[in-house]
Amino acid sequence: MTVTAPKGFRAAGVEAGLKNSGGLDVVLVVNDGPSAAAAAVFTENRCEAHPVTWSRKVVADGTVSAIALNSGGANCFTGEFGAETTRLTAERAAQHLGIAAGDVIVCSTGLIGMGDQGWRDKLLAGIDAAYPALAADAQAGSNAADGILTTDTVQKVSTREGSGYTIGGMAKGAGMLAPGLATMLVVITTDADLESNQLDAALRQATRVTFDRVDSDGCMSTNDTVALLASGASGVTPETEEFTRLLTEVCDDLAKMLQQDAEGASHDITIITTGAATEQEAVDVSRAVSRSNLFKAAIFGNDPNWGRVLAAIGTTDAQFDPQAIDVSMNGVMVCKAGTPHAPVDSVDLSPRATEVLIDLHAGDATATILTNDLTHDYVHENSAYSS
Amino acid sequence: MTVTAPKGFRAAGVEAGLKNSGGLDVVLVVNDGPSAAAAAVFTENRCEAHPVTWSRKVVADGTVSAIALNSGGANCFTGEFGAETTRLTAERAAQHLGIAAGDVIVCSTGLIGMGDQGWRDKLLAGIDAAYPALAADAQAGSNAADGILTTDTVQKVSTREGSGYTIGGMAKGAGMLAPGLATMLVVITTDADLESNQLDAALRQATRVTFDRVDSDGCMSTNDTVALLASGASGVTPETEEFTRLLTEVCDDLAKMLQQDAEGASHDITIITTGAATEQEAVDVSRAVSRSNLFKAAIFGNDPNWGRVLAAIGTTDAQFDPQAIDVSMNGVMVCKAGTPHAPVDSVDLSPRATEVLIDLHAGDATATILTNDLTHDYVHENSAYSS
Repeated sequence: MTVTAPKGFRAAGVEAGLKNSGGLDVVLVVNDGPSAAAAAVFTENRCEAHPVTWSRKVVADGTVSAIALNSGGANCFTGEFGAETTRLTAERAAQHLGIAAGDVIVCSTGLIGMGDQGWRDKLLAGIDAAYPALAADAQAGSNAADGILTTDTVQKVSTREGSGYTIGGMAKGAGMLAPGLATMLVVITTDADLESNQLDAALRQATRVTFDRVDSDGCMSTNDTVALLASGASGVTPETEEFTRLLTEVCDDLAKMLQQDAEGASHDITIITTGAATEQEAVDVSRAVSRSNLFKAAIFGNDPNWGRVLAAIGTTDAQFDPQAIDVSMNGVMVCKAGTPHAPVDSVDLSPRATEVLIDLHAGDATATILTNDLTHDYVHENSAYSS
Repeated sequence: MTVTAPKGFRAAGVEAGLKNSGGLDVVLVVNDGPSAAAAAVFTENRCEAHPVTWSRKVVADGTVSAIALNSGGANCFTGEFGAETTRLTAERAAQHLGIAAGDVIVCSTGLIGMGDQGWRDKLLAGIDAAYPALAADAQAGSNAADGILTTDTVQKVSTREGSGYTIGGMAKGAGMLAPGLATMLVVITTDADLESNQLDAALRQATRVTFDRVDSDGCMSTNDTVALLASGASGVTPETEEFTRLLTEVCDDLAKMLQQDAEGASHDITIITTGAATEQEAVDVSRAVSRSNLFKAAIFGNDPNWGRVLAAIGTTDAQFDPQAIDVSMNGVMVCKAGTPHAPVDSVDLSPRATEVLIDLHAGDATATILTNDLTHDYVHENSAYSS
């Protein structure tokens, strides 16, 4: 059911010819209310795409009535013409819906630096085609989830039921997954009745421990957007704690799906740092390991090369004594107190799900980063990118 | 001639059975004086190997009479036993040479987390064999340069002639090349007569703009060492400026050789950032691009994907207006003022030497980072590492 699972939402996905590979590529998600409260978080990349610049302004007043999304072009570094394309996209959707363009978020994904008149014409025609296709049923939600995919191989959706309300989400993203969010477009809807500042707090809390901790390939996108729209159609105002917990679960589901569909990956690596002095230091250590190409290539080769883990840890400012660190891989402690421990050939790295557990013995804080291995296929897919 | 080119130095390289691949793997370089002035810089990795910990102390007084080096094992994260192995190595060399162990630097390279009694025995026997092989001729210098190689495919040496003195250098390093120096062992000798503080200043100035700006794969080693020994045997005390310039040229030669022999690389990429507000910001921008796996994979595929350059630039704190940035690849400006300019198919990325020129239009500072592409072969070599 995805974004149409909560009451008060319609969605559509149509084929507008933007994606070279064909398939659905223009999507509308509409909040029919009664509320139009919303929150969103965006990429921290300073080279942001035009749709991000536009959407930041739209969500500033906490009100969003619709989202127009496209795959097949990021509309980033396309000059004034590209900025105008984003504005025209919002205006076209707004005209059909009888709302203000300033209440329409725009999200784009695909290649940077493209988007000419022909591309714009197809995109606007896609909005025209999507409007009459809008529906509140499961198929419409599924079409929307399909229409935002680029090199993704599977649809990414998740829902949770709260006490009288529902949360539904969809995501795309398979490469450029990194901190400050991934190339990642995520739309989450709910029929809970919450103010935009409550939505904003819940969304930031949820993304901080989910999407912000996926770091597949260390590359930060120009287009990342995670939007949360609340229709209030359930008439229920949930407890903040429960809502945030369920929202975090939806984000966690979607984040893991991003990891599991990462381009070319053959291992999903969960890097847990424990015994850290602070949570931030635990994040820093796990992230440093997730950024080590040597470590990631070793995991691809099923090689439990823990020296590369320690070499990455040593690049951080976290508090630790190098001679106190333990490293375990898939449950086998290969390094104890900075010295070799269990034989490395007792580690089985053949499963796709791989766990690296680092104990710094410097405190009580823990954090996890989700990453992937560095494979021939990753190199191949990204050396001949087209979307 | 390498490290034996300057007067006052002897060297040797012997086969001690440390490297699985066979070949020379234990090296001695001896400074016969009259001066024993020296300087060295080491990895910034906090998880440093035992030889680095030892050698920092040795060079602290500005006096080094000999260097014992080995490939076939990094002696890192090998516990107290490993620390003792380093001490015994220095002591064994010192005994033969009739000098203090505290004047012997030790450098090791190879796999982290290995070095048992058998390995130690071979290493010490290698020192015993190297001592009688010490000679001041070109063959001895060449053997020394060969004996420190691991996955390197070529010997890396450079010399310069000053006004009455000589500088000679050798290096190893092919992977883990990153800031704060690479896995990189470098020994530079000179017969100039300089104090250790003069050597230290010259060495730091030279490495800052050479080795510190090679970033092949973003991974920082535990063992990096660059040592500079001055015998004073020429009787010439050079001008600081000339000496620093020639030393920088030797370091630059060796740094480029490291880049050109990087594991699995098919492109040597020179990333020049100009128009930066400060030199550090120019370094930050070039380095951010050199760390982007997506960019590096695109170059492997001869794809001038400038969007990935801008996406990497956007992750930095450097001063710039995204809509003012120009990007050229191999002389073709593909992005001008943040918008597409020359057609990407006019860029020829087939040569191994690749240049990316970024103009931030934010100031007058420039800096260059040397990196490589991300290839199938890089992944392959590092997924089944053995040295």
